[in-house]
Amino acid sequence: MDFRLTEDEELFQKVVREFCEKRLRPRSREIDETEQIPLDLLKQMAELKLLGIGIPESYGGAGATAMMTALAAVEIGRGDISMATAVFYLLEAGWSYILNLFGTEQAKREVFPPVVAGDAFIGIATTEPGGGSDLANTKTTARREGDYYVLNGEKAFCSGVIESAQRLPEGGGHLTLVRTDPSRGYNGMSFIYVPIRTEGITVTQYKDMGRMGISTGGIFYKDAKVPAKYLLGEEDKGFYYAMSGFNAARTQVAAACVGAAERALEVGIEYVKQREAFGRPIGKFEGVQFEIADQYGMTEMIKLAVLKAASLIDQNPHPDSYMQSEITKIVSIAKLFAPQIAFETVKRAMMWYGAAGYTKENELEMGLRGVMSYMVGAEGALNIMRVILGRELLGKEFIPYK
Amino acid sequence: MDFRLTEDEELFQKVVREFCEKRLRPRSREIDETEQIPLDLLKQMAELKLLGIGIPESYGGAGATAMMTALAAVEIGRGDISMATAVFYLLEAGWSYILNLFGTEQAKREVFPPVVAGDAFIGIATTEPGGGSDLANTKTTARREGDYYVLNGEKAFCSGVIESAQRLPEGGGHLTLVRTDPSRGYNGMSFIYVPIRTEGITVTQYKDMGRMGISTGGIFYKDAKVPAKYLLGEEDKGFYYAMSGFNAARTQVAAACVGAAERALEVGIEYVKQREAFGRPIGKFEGVQFEIADQYGMTEMIKLAVLKAASLIDQNPHPDSYMQSEITKIVSIAKLFAPQIAFETVKRAMMWYGAAGYTKENELEMGLRGVMSYMVGAEGALNIMRVILGRELLGKEFIPYK
Amino acid sequence: MDFRLTEDEELFQKVVREFCEKRLRPRSREIDETEQIPLDLLKQMAELKLLGIGIPESYGGAGATAMMTALAAVEIGRGDISMATAVFYLLEAGWSYILNLFGTEQAKREVFPPVVAGDAFIGIATTEPGGGSDLANTKTTARREGDYYVLNGEKAFCSGVIESAQRLPEGGGHLTLVRTDPSRGYNGMSFIYVPIRTEGITVTQYKDMGRMGISTGGIFYKDAKVPAKYLLGEEDKGFYYAMSGFNAARTQVAAACVGAAERALEVGIEYVKQREAFGRPIGKFEGVQFEIADQYGMTEMIKLAVLKAASLIDQNPHPDSYMQSEITKIVSIAKLFAPQIAFETVKRAMMWYGAAGYTKENELEMGLRGVMSYMVGAEGALNIMRVILGRELLGKEFIPYK
Amino acid sequence: MDFRLTEDEELFQKVVREFCEKRLRPRSREIDETEQIPLDLLKQMAELKLLGIGIPESYGGAGATAMMTALAAVEIGRGDISMATAVFYLLEAGWSYILNLFGTEQAKREVFPPVVAGDAFIGIATTEPGGGSDLANTKTTARREGDYYVLNGEKAFCSGVIESAQRLPEGGGHLTLVRTDPSRGYNGMSFIYVPIRTEGITVTQYKDMGRMGISTGGIFYKDAKVPAKYLLGEEDKGFYYAMSGFNAARTQVAAACVGAAERALEVGIEYVKQREAFGRPIGKFEGVQFEIADQYGMTEMIKLAVLKAASLIDQNPHPDSYMQSEITKIVSIAKLFAPQIAFETVKRAMMWYGAAGYTKENELEMGLRGVMSYMVGAEGALNIMRVILGRELLGKEFIPYK
Repeated sequence: MDFRLTEDEELFQKVVREFCEKRLRPRSREIDETEQIPLDLLKQMAELKLLGIGIPESYGGAGATAMMTALAAVEIGRGDISMATAVFYLLEAGWSYILNLFGTEQAKREVFPPVVAGDAFIGIATTEPGGGSDLANTKTTARREGDYYVLNGEKAFCSGVIESAQRLPEGGGHLTLVRTDPSRGYNGMSFIYVPIRTEGITVTQYKDMGRMGISTGGIFYKDAKVPAKYLLGEEDKGFYYAMSGFNAARTQVAAACVGAAERALEVGIEYVKQREAFGRPIGKFEGVQFEIADQYGMTEMIKLAVLKAASLIDQNPHPDSYMQSEITKIVSIAKLFAPQIAFETVKRAMMWYGAAGYTKENELEMGLRGVMSYMVGAEGALNIMRVILGRELLGKEFIPYK
Repeated sequence: MDFRLTEDEELFQKVVREFCEKRLRPRSREIDETEQIPLDLLKQMAELKLLGIGIPESYGGAGATAMMTALAAVEIGRGDISMATAVFYLLEAGWSYILNLFGTEQAKREVFPPVVAGDAFIGIATTEPGGGSDLANTKTTARREGDYYVLNGEKAFCSGVIESAQRLPEGGGHLTLVRTDPSRGYNGMSFIYVPIRTEGITVTQYKDMGRMGISTGGIFYKDAKVPAKYLLGEEDKGFYYAMSGFNAARTQVAAACVGAAERALEVGIEYVKQREAFGRPIGKFEGVQFEIADQYGMTEMIKLAVLKAASLIDQNPHPDSYMQSEITKIVSIAKLFAPQIAFETVKRAMMWYGAAGYTKENELEMGLRGVMSYMVGAEGALNIMRVILGRELLGKEFIPYK
Repeated sequence: MDFRLTEDEELFQKVVREFCEKRLRPRSREIDETEQIPLDLLKQMAELKLLGIGIPESYGGAGATAMMTALAAVEIGRGDISMATAVFYLLEAGWSYILNLFGTEQAKREVFPPVVAGDAFIGIATTEPGGGSDLANTKTTARREGDYYVLNGEKAFCSGVIESAQRLPEGGGHLTLVRTDPSRGYNGMSFIYVPIRTEGITVTQYKDMGRMGISTGGIFYKDAKVPAKYLLGEEDKGFYYAMSGFNAARTQVAAACVGAAERALEVGIEYVKQREAFGRPIGKFEGVQFEIADQYGMTEMIKLAVLKAASLIDQNPHPDSYMQSEITKIVSIAKLFAPQIAFETVKRAMMWYGAAGYTKENELEMGLRGVMSYMVGAEGALNIMRVILGRELLGKEFIPYK
Repeated sequence: MDFRLTEDEELFQKVVREFCEKRLRPRSREIDETEQIPLDLLKQMAELKLLGIGIPESYGGAGATAMMTALAAVEIGRGDISMATAVFYLLEAGWSYILNLFGTEQAKREVFPPVVAGDAFIGIATTEPGGGSDLANTKTTARREGDYYVLNGEKAFCSGVIESAQRLPEGGGHLTLVRTDPSRGYNGMSFIYVPIRTEGITVTQYKDMGRMGISTGGIFYKDAKVPAKYLLGEEDKGFYYAMSGFNAARTQVAAACVGAAERALEVGIEYVKQREAFGRPIGKFEGVQFEIADQYGMTEMIKLAVLKAASLIDQNPHPDSYMQSEITKIVSIAKLFAPQIAFETVKRAMMWYGAAGYTKENELEMGLRGVMSYMVGAEGALNIMRVILGRELLGKEFIPYK
């Protein structure tokens, strides 16, 4: 075993951290207040090849490994603790990875370059109203008509709807789970890249409590015609493509949470070393110091799990590798614990600050609101991670609802 | 022992609950968004005698017991889970109680009637910048000049500054801890009611993450002259008056948190009974149901502690009663655990909702932001409660920083 | 509400505490090592009317209320932290209560006097091998033959088997759940008092990890003939009699756990005030002191829940009272949290002691082993309490396994 | 980064696991009941070169890395969950490592071969009565007299006293922290290997609650003469040698705890897949399954921390490496969390079993008692780990007691 980063990785990490500290963090409160990531900031990220980071060089991307993707996700989570930039970053990273694995050459040639340039967004649309993590209930349909699929239905809780529909010059779209054969359950779904600026598609926007800089909303499809070249892989196998994307995306979600936890520790430690009460800096009180020790330890542990997940994914790029169960388990651990640890760390750091931590002068309150979005379940609720772990450890026959 | 409410208490509870469900809750999101409690709503509360609830009838108040005050605090926390109304209510309840105990007849005749009428606010100003719970460092001074005290200095993190300085027709003020004898530490402080619309007083407002409907800010005193009749009790004994007020206020803070927890359980249970996933309502899954059981159990336990605190205070109204240690312990337990239990309950209820719990359509997100204000430390940080309990259990010589 | 004990209750509590401190605790290690409660100690308890404490005076008992029973259970848990004496005490208290409610006059006249005198044991036998809390699977049968029931089958994890079968001069027996009508599920079971020294009954003894002073074992019935007068209430209604007994027994289990927690705090506080490290008593370190504060607070809260449960039971003695749901909820809370809080408190107290807490010189290690017996599930597993609370809060249709 | 074991490591792990499953585990209950590890079993371990595992090949040892030492510690913890064999193993591993680093050639030639052969024990003696983790208070003295040190004083809570003093054919001894210059605090202590069968040395044995197979006791020195060749390094620098040994030993303690947790999961999972309640195997209930998921996840995370600690130690063998702070932090994390996670996992596994988990038929109860020895503080109390982490994260000036 070797727990050291390579020199390349360390250099990359340093560059990204510098960008995040100098360019991203100074604008994180602006991102929260204006409820959008400034376009010039996206352009700066694009220059560093951070957008669609895993897209192969042949399409203009950086072709980053899962490990490098995760290292950057940590830094972006540290830089904008509201998580908005991290959500934007990791959705693009995770789902361009899947489009690259399963998409047609033509689709990739069209979709990737503007994503890499920061001019278009790529995300995912699987959840439906009332659906949550239960994808078997997918009701949105796509019926084949010549060279097109015609979509009807509704998706909910999709990130990046306003960015792709309105803000970014080239738009963008979502990998969309649709039912192509209503009679066959999991085996009747397809996964299609759907440009959001398609006739017949309208969007709504929700008002969320946090990670304000990236929009969330619903997407409505009324006889929306999407070119068949945007189908991923084979028809009716979409559920499995979506699932394999979740392992990649969840690893990055967990990495971003690690970044938020690290940042909370950083500002928390800085503060408790300075602020005095009862004649000494409050960092000298065990009541505070021991919490720092505990949260630091938890953060280090979950970071190891995240990096192990990334490392295994890099070593076993094929979703059908014999290592799949190992990967699924460590990814699920990462996604199960990283949000909880990050949330608890941010919460405690706010408590070290006292009332000063409760104001909007303080970046931690953005962190608490932002990380909460991963507690409620983006990329799979925490209990879904437990169900997955239970299935891998006990066997499929122990899935509770079967 | 008798764990039943009296008929009067039950009736009172019912009336307050009805008001909160019909009048308060429908406007709780408005309170959050407009960042103020509508004046007509305050007037409605005044009609029910809920403002300055413990003020004796001779001054126009309801003369409520600590128990009734707590029962109403629970209902108000349930009604406006953002905690803004609860904060307004309990500050007035807690500090008018102290003014009644220690203030001059003249001060009470002037101050109480507009508070009861909803035309003025009464709160507290003890914290100073960087001071937090360490009141020994109080730097704001008051020097006696004839019939006045002349104040200089600065208070921080005071609630109700804008309400009293600008919004309410009759203004109001804060019980203010000042140093009257710089040489004598805890024994050189006095507690004075300071009308905020006094020449020489200016205020600033913070931007907080939650309980938006009540303002928080700093108060600056520059040669501000306050009539001596507003001094509570004796000069130089103010620290002890302030401390005895905290037991009353903390009990009510805890009661409001119980209300928030109860409301979170209520909406959470309602939701999980309806929302289906994997073929059944999610409330049927042990992963959800067991959390409901745990949080309900914790809420019931802390409610017992809160009501015991109120009951003991009512039975031992004098701050120097032989029961003081018992009261202090149960109050500290209530204030230590109630915010934690409420925060955890609201957090988990949001998680039962999933992404739907994260939007501003959902009152729970207000609750999370609001209860967090009691996690960071209003009316005493959680660790201060632990220090107090440690002192009562181990002895004064075990106070960690001495 | 009134959180004060009556004078009678306070006096009673004082007497029992004195007995426990002077007579019981000095022999608690002996109880653990010899794996039995000395007969002379039982006789002393009998003199204080502590055995079968709720048995009416007309049968020689003390006719204690649930409140007094709980107050004594706390003291006995404090006195013998290994929980052996508490288990003996509360089984007798809980199940003689049920025999008194539902048994025949003849049965009570025979069974109660030797129990009160400390010459016989009365307990319960519901669990079967592999059965745990799932009583619907009960396989032991009783078929009526004239004035007798003839039992066949096997019970497991029954307490007091050796005491009743061998040690106590007059023996004793167990309220035994049997199937009288195999075709009718819950509605085909009966509850019968079975004297263990009946022909056809044999016992085995397990070797447990703790509460060594009371035996646990299996009971085997081979054509064992039991007089029909020992039937409780009506045939085929036994399941409901057993259930109503659990509320009483669980309250007392929780009370005993409160006693263990209180004792752990007591010896822990005593120790940390004396033991020095790094130049001061370790109780002055927040790392230790804050744990004391937390555990004390949790213990006080659960104690309130336990006493409320006892109080409600006393006010609503009939199992079919309209308050039944309230009682079931508060009892379930008590039984769900009391073992957890006690276990955690004892564990932490051992940790304050360090290595000195790990030796058999120290009563805490007995406490950890003893309380663990209530973590694994005596009188209902913790998860069963959660299922019950879920049922009461969500409705019967939400029972997870239905 | 690379999270894979080498082929050699995997092979080694497999061999040790096989030994532990076939030879060690079948005798683990015997170890607990007879309160000793059978000599023939030690001989079998010696054949596999598991005793004094890091001792260089030149002294007959295996010269194992910290990584291999940890891998074996995990397996031994899995094999004998009572932790007795693990304690024996890791004390020898940890302190022979220090003797090898700092001891004289002569000492090593004498001491190591019988340790490797299973004929002698090597351990540590630092704690003194009432001393715990506060080594600055060390009172045992050693004064130089010619070629000898003459020791007077008393050590407490030392493992392996009876093994070395009586049971093992060649005896053995302890690295003993003594005061050689009373005037110089930490800079006046020396670290000496003290053969326990030295004239003037007597031992006592404690009766512990768990890990019964290895003795613990006190060592009394009355003018005990120990050859000067047994001094480690330089006189008066012993404190630092002892400290550097703790990092190695703590890593192995944590590894053994990981083994216990893995074993608890293994037997727990096996059981819940088979045992039925309410019509299905209890592993299908989320209440059980989700705990398995959580404990498995925690165990995997802490295992990564343990292996990272071992890996860093192997890459930076010198205690004064620039990586020292990194090593100290990850070691402290491992020692802080591994016992807690293992304890919690064993506890929960017992609860999955219910009453069946409470009997001495079940190895888990040995595990609970055994792991508790690492909760109370062997090789440094948990709070000491927090102090160390606090020091590394905040700076030395934040040590709470300074």
